[in-house]
Amino acid sequence: MTFFRSFAIALLTTTCMFAGAVQAEGPPSKGEQALKYRKSLYQVMAWNFGPMGAMAQGKVPYDAAEFAKRADRVAMIAPLLSEGFPAETKGLPNSELKPEMWANRADFDAKMKDLVDRSATLATVAKTGDFAQSKAAFFDAANACKACHDKYKND
Amino acid sequence: MTFFRSFAIALLTTTCMFAGAVQAEGPPSKGEQALKYRKSLYQVMAWNFGPMGAMAQGKVPYDAAEFAKRADRVAMIAPLLSEGFPAETKGLPNSELKPEMWANRADFDAKMKDLVDRSATLATVAKTGDFAQSKAAFFDAANACKACHDKYKND
Repeated sequence: MTFFRSFAIALLTTTCMFAGAVQAEGPPSKGEQALKYRKSLYQVMAWNFGPMGAMAQGKVPYDAAEFAKRADRVAMIAPLLSEGFPAETKGLPNSELKPEMWANRADFDAKMKDLVDRSATLATVAKTGDFAQSKAAFFDAANACKACHDKYKND
Repeated sequence: MTFFRSFAIALLTTTCMFAGAVQAEGPPSKGEQALKYRKSLYQVMAWNFGPMGAMAQGKVPYDAAEFAKRADRVAMIAPLLSEGFPAETKGLPNSELKPEMWANRADFDAKMKDLVDRSATLATVAKTGDFAQSKAAFFDAANACKACHDKYKND
C-alpha cells in the first residue's frame, strides 16, 4: 500500500491536480482552483455546444446521432458549473464574472438552474432525432446561456 | 427566427466558443481549440479525482455519497478525452504531450481505454458504498492515469 499511497500523493499533487497550470508562485488557492475548474467546464460546454449550433444554423447538415451525443454531454456538464462559483472566487482576477453576481446570488442560481433544466430537455429531445424540435430545444438552452451572460458576464 | 439566428451566431462565436480564452492573434486554430479542450477535460477530471484521492489516502473521512458522485463524474469525463488528441494538435506549443505518442498511437489509445474502463468500474464500485473496494478501484483508475503519464506526458 505504501507504493500506492506515495504514488497517489505524487499523482494528485503534481500530475493531476494542476494539469496544464503553470504557477509562478506556489500552488493555486482554493478559489483559483475553482475558477480554473469553472473555466474548464465552460470550455467543455462550448466545445460540445458548437457542433449543435452549426447544425441548428444550417451551416452543416443535421446528424441526429452527433447532435444527441453533444446534447448529452452538455446536459451532463451543466449541473457541475455551480460548484465553480464558491465565495473563494470572489474578486479574483482573470475572471469574466461581473461582481454584481455576488449581490444577486439567488437570481444567478435560478439562471443556472434554467440552463441545467433546458440542457436536460435538450438531451431528451435530441434523442427523438426530430430536427425541428431539437433545434428549438437547442435555442432554448442557448438562451439560458445568454440570459446569464448578459447580466453577469463581462465581454 | 432571425433574432435567434443572429443571437446564436454571436453567442457561439464570441461568448461560448472561446470562453476564457484570450487570443492575441485571431481565433484559435482547430488544433489549438482541441488542445484547450483536452486540458479543460483533464482539469475537470483532476477536480473530481482530488476528493476521492483524499479519502482513499485517509486525509478526510470516507463519504460514500461524495465518493460516488466524484466517481460518476470521472467516469463520464474519461470517454471524452480521446477527442482532444486529433492530428491537428501535433507539435503545438503549450502541450505536455511527449511527441513520441504520435508514433505509438495504438498504445496510447489502449492506455486511454484502460482509463475509461477503470473509471467505469470505479463508478460502479463506488455505488456499493464499500470503502475498501472503492479505494482499490480508485487506485486502479489512478494507475491508469499514471501509466499514460509516465510514458507520454512531460513533467
